[in-house]
Amino acid sequence: MTHPFDVALALDSSPGSARGRTTPDYANMVGPFGGVTAAAVLRAIEQHPDRLGDPVSLTVNYAAPIADGPFDIELRAVRTNRTNQHWIAELVQDGETRTTATAVFGIRRDTWSDTETAPPAAPAPEHTAPLDISSFVTWMRNYDMRYVEGAVPGEDSGESADSTTTLWVRDQPPRPLDYPALTALCDVFYPRVFLRRGQMLPAGTISFTVYFHADAAALQRQEADYVLATARAQRFTGGFFDQTAQLWGRDDTLLAVTHQLVYFKA
Amino acid sequence: MTHPFDVALALDSSPGSARGRTTPDYANMVGPFGGVTAAAVLRAIEQHPDRLGDPVSLTVNYAAPIADGPFDIELRAVRTNRTNQHWIAELVQDGETRTTATAVFGIRRDTWSDTETAPPAAPAPEHTAPLDISSFVTWMRNYDMRYVEGAVPGEDSGESADSTTTLWVRDQPPRPLDYPALTALCDVFYPRVFLRRGQMLPAGTISFTVYFHADAAALQRQEADYVLATARAQRFTGGFFDQTAQLWGRDDTLLAVTHQLVYFKA
Repeated sequence: MTHPFDVALALDSSPGSARGRTTPDYANMVGPFGGVTAAAVLRAIEQHPDRLGDPVSLTVNYAAPIADGPFDIELRAVRTNRTNQHWIAELVQDGETRTTATAVFGIRRDTWSDTETAPPAAPAPEHTAPLDISSFVTWMRNYDMRYVEGAVPGEDSGESADSTTTLWVRDQPPRPLDYPALTALCDVFYPRVFLRRGQMLPAGTISFTVYFHADAAALQRQEADYVLATARAQRFTGGFFDQTAQLWGRDDTLLAVTHQLVYFKA
Repeated sequence: MTHPFDVALALDSSPGSARGRTTPDYANMVGPFGGVTAAAVLRAIEQHPDRLGDPVSLTVNYAAPIADGPFDIELRAVRTNRTNQHWIAELVQDGETRTTATAVFGIRRDTWSDTETAPPAAPAPEHTAPLDISSFVTWMRNYDMRYVEGAVPGEDSGESADSTTTLWVRDQPPRPLDYPALTALCDVFYPRVFLRRGQMLPAGTISFTVYFHADAAALQRQEADYVLATARAQRFTGGFFDQTAQLWGRDDTLLAVTHQLVYFKA
């Protein structure tokens, strides 16, 4: 049986375009889960015959809701250098751009390397309670989420002074980690303003960026294991907040860092 | 006399395009300072007759060096919603895309607001030694830089275990802060790998993102004063590192957060 994530990412590619289709499995409040849209853009580039190397950075801007049904990802390698390649993509429905994206792919080289930050302290996922996601939006059912800190607020949670959320998370059912799956996991956090205000509020990601630190070998090492995802906001103002986050392998590899700007009403 | 920054940002705008020209004042090792290129893209959008609101987020990807001389910024509002607007831009020379960008502009509203992080401790700029920038790349002469921590390494600096740099910085000569100037200031940090390795090495920004938290009133309050800029890397690997940074007003306003992915050889 094809994994629901691969169903959501199935694309019919032709030169300069890839046709996909939303799937009910990844439905959000309005349109599909933004993480799966970003993953579809990345997959479209990966499948392009001119593609050079692996993902290095990706920025996706959510311009308008995506309707249930087919969509076209129009994509173009605007520049191919010796070791990296720059892409522009637009997700289009009914002749209207719903999502814009830019990406850099590149060839990684052996260099001096160092990780300056450390993962947050966390008990093993086996000792962390799984979230019962049956009462949440549909797309969350595709993830096994085990909150270590900053779980989704309930009715009596009250306000919080800190927007930090840390969780173990993996695809449900488990699926070997690859770049599209890592991309989607980077958007797995519920809006930080919920945690601060202790309640659900209208909120939606406007711009989403992933910097990929994992090379193909590091991804393969993760197999289908949990990753430790941690996120926080720095400032909420004027109806927008930023979020900055890290995704760690269980082997303490910093797989990706990711940032987003989110619209909210409060 | 026109400020050098405004000379660098002078654009002849026509529908869908804006023509600019590199200026010797902002020359980098190869091509112009990336911060001034990003600022020119932002300025082109600001001057577009269809523009809605103020900058919210900007991502600029540096695809190829910009040659000395004229350039065209081709830009397009792909989507205008009630309170925000999505842009795609490409900087073109000789028919080749040298830089890609996406941006979101929007109308800020009075909402619940909070700043979760605090600025780093720093003595006042008046008590911090100005950097003698005469021996550095040309563009740095347009900034009054006063390093609090992590100054540009000298010949005997040696390696550092921490990539953090914090400095007071403002335009030189002083100039009232606006969104383009803030954008350029977000790229004012020298590459973090220099600090870690204690030496200059080949390095260049590939992707650069700014999330603007300052509204027009907050910018105006800064006048032409110093801002406190602080940056660090999280991981160096495979020939790339990420940088995450904050720009603070002297009144402790978090004006912008900014992230970039940088190519390096070491």
